[in-house]
Amino acid sequence: MTAATQVRLARRPQGEPDDATYRVTHDPVPEPADGQLLLRVVYVSLDPYVRGRMSDAPSYAAPMEVGDVIVGGTVCEVVESRHPDYTAGDIVLSYSGWQTHALSDGSGLRRVDASVVPVSTALGVLGMPGFTAYAGLLEIGRPQPGETVVVAAATGPVGSAVGQVARVKGARAVGIAGGPQKCLALLDDFGFDAAVDHRSDAFAEQLADAVPDGVDVYFENVGGRVTREVLRHVNTYARMPVCGLVSGYNATSAPEGPDRLPGFMGLVLRKSLTVRGFIQDEFTGSHGRDFVREMSGWVADGSVRYREDVVEGLESAPEAFRGLLTGRNFGKLLVRVGEDPTR
Amino acid sequence: MTAATQVRLARRPQGEPDDATYRVTHDPVPEPADGQLLLRVVYVSLDPYVRGRMSDAPSYAAPMEVGDVIVGGTVCEVVESRHPDYTAGDIVLSYSGWQTHALSDGSGLRRVDASVVPVSTALGVLGMPGFTAYAGLLEIGRPQPGETVVVAAATGPVGSAVGQVARVKGARAVGIAGGPQKCLALLDDFGFDAAVDHRSDAFAEQLADAVPDGVDVYFENVGGRVTREVLRHVNTYARMPVCGLVSGYNATSAPEGPDRLPGFMGLVLRKSLTVRGFIQDEFTGSHGRDFVREMSGWVADGSVRYREDVVEGLESAPEAFRGLLTGRNFGKLLVRVGEDPTR
Repeated sequence: MTAATQVRLARRPQGEPDDATYRVTHDPVPEPADGQLLLRVVYVSLDPYVRGRMSDAPSYAAPMEVGDVIVGGTVCEVVESRHPDYTAGDIVLSYSGWQTHALSDGSGLRRVDASVVPVSTALGVLGMPGFTAYAGLLEIGRPQPGETVVVAAATGPVGSAVGQVARVKGARAVGIAGGPQKCLALLDDFGFDAAVDHRSDAFAEQLADAVPDGVDVYFENVGGRVTREVLRHVNTYARMPVCGLVSGYNATSAPEGPDRLPGFMGLVLRKSLTVRGFIQDEFTGSHGRDFVREMSGWVADGSVRYREDVVEGLESAPEAFRGLLTGRNFGKLLVRVGEDPTR
Repeated sequence: MTAATQVRLARRPQGEPDDATYRVTHDPVPEPADGQLLLRVVYVSLDPYVRGRMSDAPSYAAPMEVGDVIVGGTVCEVVESRHPDYTAGDIVLSYSGWQTHALSDGSGLRRVDASVVPVSTALGVLGMPGFTAYAGLLEIGRPQPGETVVVAAATGPVGSAVGQVARVKGARAVGIAGGPQKCLALLDDFGFDAAVDHRSDAFAEQLADAVPDGVDVYFENVGGRVTREVLRHVNTYARMPVCGLVSGYNATSAPEGPDRLPGFMGLVLRKSLTVRGFIQDEFTGSHGRDFVREMSGWVADGSVRYREDVVEGLESAPEAFRGLLTGRNFGKLLVRVGEDPTR
């Protein structure tokens, strides 16, 4: 292979990203200078927050510039190392984005142990999505034994971890997902106590049946209509970690009325709710070590299971990303950019 | 005096309470049975939360029933006691509502010390409004030295205490009030660092000028347009204790769109905001003693000042309450129902 491929931001999307959003470029594979390494991308992670970085609206991270390689976490193989800490063949976690090759000076890299679990988990249950679930649930949600925890997008990498960690802590886990197949997986694969299909006409009634004791923690990652239904059931002192709002990421203007903000604030007041937005890296210092130790243990002993949805080839990334924003994926969405040398 | 007077809920108000909301009744002054006391109401406190209890919409407290005496905290003189813990002439804090006389079996009563500060302060800076400010600001707002704390309705009993306690803790206090006279009082009487007039055409610009370092704590007691402007300036990790939403208490339907809830939740996420509703009695156990000790000290040494707006006579209560919901009062609003024996 003599050419490297990149997928770049060609134009900021209005609404749903389409083909005009992206531009594919080819460069020669770069040569590492002294102190650098050449990485070959094996997996790139597709995550909803990337939609925000495509826009120049205010966000929690600086927007991408037009022309930049689309950002994303990656698992890579070290092809050539002129860096003292790494050698060819090492598997590393990096933030190389939608491309086949990247240079690195070692900053931000983390070595991935290929001996225990598949290296792709470093982008899922044992990576950023798993840590988002762990830190947001335990630090903000603080589920107590016997309480009810509700999460949507529940077969996704964050949602599935939220429900399973809630159960480890003795809480009751209720998952919301789109379609009967995903709901079945919530019960059979992930061990949720109840599953509710937000695409069903009977969604509101199913949800009410699934939370007979009300909702103590609502882990918010979707927004919109699903959230409105869940809010009907929150208990006094309920906690609402806000980690994402994927249902609105493609919105191009403020939704039509009525204005639901006053009603929401009234609920916050009446029920003494805690609503707390967070980005997982806030908690890296305080919870990072515990996460690695605990979550690895739970994955090893089967208390926490994970599901991956792997699409093949960098050229599949744009369409897969479109599906991610509308819930077409089923599990942690990854693009296999190149051969996984550990499998 | 042989007759007692009561103001009762005649009809649940739609929107702003009007004359048809109330009915005045007269009864003979009751006789205390064994174990009871007869109270003569001296001051009744008018507070925004009472508007919620006039409605049968879900609230954090049970609604009044039609026919009930309008609820409210009161400072009373014991006229006759057949209760072992009290004697005639004692001054007590009770929850006797809009009436001239009440019987009590002693439950929920608290003796008020008339020797240090006026007894009316038991309904204001040293009572429920002061405790609301103290507990909400310190437990949820957690202002740090040098941070900026913003509060609206800032000449009111809660707002003025929020700003002054914030300053005691080394934070910068910015008050929002309606009209130049109240804004002057914020600076001259209450020692706020900046005052902003929400009735001014230049409100948005004045507010921006008043918070050059952004907003770290927004103590929410009004909602609506004022809140929307403040939210433009919140810093990452800002805290928002939600203690009231008086601008919407007379609303009869969900406000017209656009729907501002998605935008608000996006802000919560981007800025990692903490939004926490509370009712002060949640914190009585954890902060009640500290409050009495600290706030009494601050009032005594002049670090915390207070302002009362006293209207005369129970018959003035309905009109004064109407004004409370639109900001016509200037300071803690009290009705002097009968002679204050301590003045």
